Amino acid sequence: MGKVVVDITMSLDGFIAGTNISTALPMGDGGLRLHDWIFGGKTEADAKMLDESMKSAGAVIIGARIYRTAIDDAWGGVNPFAAPTLVLANHIPDQVVEGFTFINDGILSALERAKAIAGDKNVWVMGGANVIQQYLKAGLVDELHIHIAPVLFGEGTRLFEHIGAEPVELKLLENIQTPGATHLRFRVVK
Amino acid sequence: MGKVVVDITMSLDGFIAGTNISTALPMGDGGLRLHDWIFGGKTEADAKMLDESMKSAGAVIIGARIYRTAIDDAWGGVNPFAAPTLVLANHIPDQVVEGFTFINDGILSALERAKAIAGDKNVWVMGGANVIQQYLKAGLVDELHIHIAPVLFGEGTRLFEHIGAEPVELKLLENIQTPGATHLRFRVVK
Repeated sequence: MGKVVVDITMSLDGFIAGTNISTALPMGDGGLRLHDWIFGGKTEADAKMLDESMKSAGAVIIGARIYRTAIDDAWGGVNPFAAPTLVLANHIPDQVVEGFTFINDGILSALERAKAIAGDKNVWVMGGANVIQQYLKAGLVDELHIHIAPVLFGEGTRLFEHIGAEPVELKLLENIQTPGATHLRFRVVK
Repeated sequence: MGKVVVDITMSLDGFIAGTNISTALPMGDGGLRLHDWIFGGKTEADAKMLDESMKSAGAVIIGARIYRTAIDDAWGGVNPFAAPTLVLANHIPDQVVEGFTFINDGILSALERAKAIAGDKNVWVMGGANVIQQYLKAGLVDELHIHIAPVLFGEGTRLFEHIGAEPVELKLLENIQTPGATHLRFRVVK
């Protein structure tokens, strides 16, 4: 059985995107800074981690806002993920790009579908923040893979908020430092 | 010349204290969890880091709220720091515990006094969050020493907010993993 994994880059002050997210700037103002470790000075260790993350994901879950803002420009009209991708939405559009399936009956339903697709591989809850927060709050996340970029954003989209007031213990699995980021993997203690 | 250092433990989701801070619980509800790496299973590496932090500080800056909530119970009526401590306050009380000096003419004045006292040693901007945020926003911090405790608090006092919308680049100096925390040291790029 695969795991339910959140795998995302955040600034040291906890932001996963800048302000003013749009189709022109799906990561918001200055948000691409977070991915310097991927698109800037990617080392062998960074590349290995990315590759493992991509290969271990048997299904991806994203929010409808990410699909809307990224699909045309940022993703050039194709699914950039190496696995079938479920899109959490209120409404199902008439036309959907191949590789994406819209789900409008809730996060549990989406996760069940994703697990069925992923089989022994992981389900990657990719984002946005509100989607990750919903799965965290529901206690459905098994592992957090957090890449900390050495920058303070000051403003933007926070990863961790609205996740409830109950503390959640984590167990560190891995800490890999590369020039571009601090790569931390935690297991959620249940 | 010493450096201006923020040295503090936060949860992975960015909190440095729980909710409901009081004299009985200066770290708030459940806040002591953050210091498990100090008071729980402190390893030799943890102890060495703590010792270095304490010894490198020639002066400490804190907020009046920390003084008020911690001095009697948590600190047993004595200054727990190994260096003279300046307290940022609006009003100067009649009686002040030895080792503390109240400053009511702003963060710049306090920093000047602290630097004069510290000499070649560092000035440790210890907290609370609002004090750290003011020094960060003013661009007066040279290094961030962030100890990440493997826990999500969900609620509490956030370290990083109200620090302005201008991104601040950091340069990682050190990443030390111990069983209780991920110890990251950053230089603020100016």
